[in-house]
Amino acid sequence: MERNIRLVIAFDGTAYSGWQRQQNAPTIQGTVEEKLTVLCGHQVHIHGAGRTDAGVHALGMVAHFHTTAMRPLSTFTRGLNSMLPHDIRILDASEVPLDFHSRYQALAKTYRYDFFTGDIMQPTRRLYEAHLPGPFALDSCRKCLPFLMGSHDFASFEGAGSRDPLQKIGRGAVRTIFQTDCRPKAGKPDHWSFSITGDGFLRHMVRNLIGTLRQVGLGKTSPDDFAAILTACDRHLAGPTAPACGLFLEQIYYNRQNIPVLQDKT
Amino acid sequence: MERNIRLVIAFDGTAYSGWQRQQNAPTIQGTVEEKLTVLCGHQVHIHGAGRTDAGVHALGMVAHFHTTAMRPLSTFTRGLNSMLPHDIRILDASEVPLDFHSRYQALAKTYRYDFFTGDIMQPTRRLYEAHLPGPFALDSCRKCLPFLMGSHDFASFEGAGSRDPLQKIGRGAVRTIFQTDCRPKAGKPDHWSFSITGDGFLRHMVRNLIGTLRQVGLGKTSPDDFAAILTACDRHLAGPTAPACGLFLEQIYYNRQNIPVLQDKT
Repeated sequence: MERNIRLVIAFDGTAYSGWQRQQNAPTIQGTVEEKLTVLCGHQVHIHGAGRTDAGVHALGMVAHFHTTAMRPLSTFTRGLNSMLPHDIRILDASEVPLDFHSRYQALAKTYRYDFFTGDIMQPTRRLYEAHLPGPFALDSCRKCLPFLMGSHDFASFEGAGSRDPLQKIGRGAVRTIFQTDCRPKAGKPDHWSFSITGDGFLRHMVRNLIGTLRQVGLGKTSPDDFAAILTACDRHLAGPTAPACGLFLEQIYYNRQNIPVLQDKT
Repeated sequence: MERNIRLVIAFDGTAYSGWQRQQNAPTIQGTVEEKLTVLCGHQVHIHGAGRTDAGVHALGMVAHFHTTAMRPLSTFTRGLNSMLPHDIRILDASEVPLDFHSRYQALAKTYRYDFFTGDIMQPTRRLYEAHLPGPFALDSCRKCLPFLMGSHDFASFEGAGSRDPLQKIGRGAVRTIFQTDCRPKAGKPDHWSFSITGDGFLRHMVRNLIGTLRQVGLGKTSPDDFAAILTACDRHLAGPTAPACGLFLEQIYYNRQNIPVLQDKT
């Protein structure tokens, strides 16, 4: 009997060349598939809700795989965790209908980006916060956030190269943002946390947004300029891509009721 | 002209075999000395305020070194940081009287120990919090803390082997604790932070205290038993040594006015 198993996965992306399986580089997908193949006794392919770049972390990636192995679900949590390196953890495993697809059925995702604007980065935070030294005017940054809300063509913030071919059909670079915020980390001067929830994200989109919001924080770009950059749909106008290490895939939503802000409106 | 330079150093201890220079293993002291020797043009020996074990982190280690190099102090902050790996950062450099000694003149130190008692460790926290799964009764743990305050012979919590020979003379295993606390981390269930300030610490003392407080938190040892373990001066009665990764050397005090709690009494 075929089963469909849904996993919630957290990982430290530091040591990996991103999520997606590659021939000659360690990846999250490749590592999990290798252990699941041993556990299930047949070749397993897992399908993630999205790809993450090298160095990006996840607190709640969702993936699914089909198997004929009749093992209890704890095999895919405790059992799998005992085989995986400690920088990848399975937080949950559940049996879902055969037609569940972690990617096609994802309604929204929340990303968080942590960064530090002080002079000297704390060594124990260096792999989990980007170091973007210089002044940071939170008020100016916050004035940009309303421009992001709702549906926009985010081509100005799209990474060069690889838009997902499936996503090229249809909505192009248009994505809908439901929630966004930027705030100081409690009790930590010069530490900031940006969060954004949307129905999807282009490659490097969050990191390019941060690179541009940083220009605003530095006073080099005004909030009005930021709005103009968004409207222009021209990657050359936006700021540089911020480092991967500050980025966390926080959560993926499959239930409309759980999406932040949206839930208040329904 | 001879100068005495005082450094404040933060480091991520994950990749190092502790503070103290060793022949065939990477250490914090060895790494900093190597770069300083290049910068100063003569062999430099740095003297740390204490030793930290392999895997232990520091937010504010203090060390000093003598040099004849007439370089500006920024050489020993920005210049040195540009040569050091990112897991070691010089936070401050200052010129101090020739008789300043980072170890002999240290009046007190604060250590923090972060630990997680939930089932599945978050991968991005695994190098900076110990994983001590199981129930944790904070109230019981807190009942033990007053027993630690003041001067006691901490032999029950002393690591086997190497007491510093200099410390064997005089005070033996007697240390004075000025402040101690254990509290939940804000907004993070099952994450806890223990802190302790004293005039000195025996080898493994904080980690052995945590190993024993954990037994109390689990309900296996009562607060009265904890008090009896302390009084017995017998290492065999205390709990196991907790992992190094949760331990942070937070601060070293050279000024009586700055020591927590003590300052309120003066």
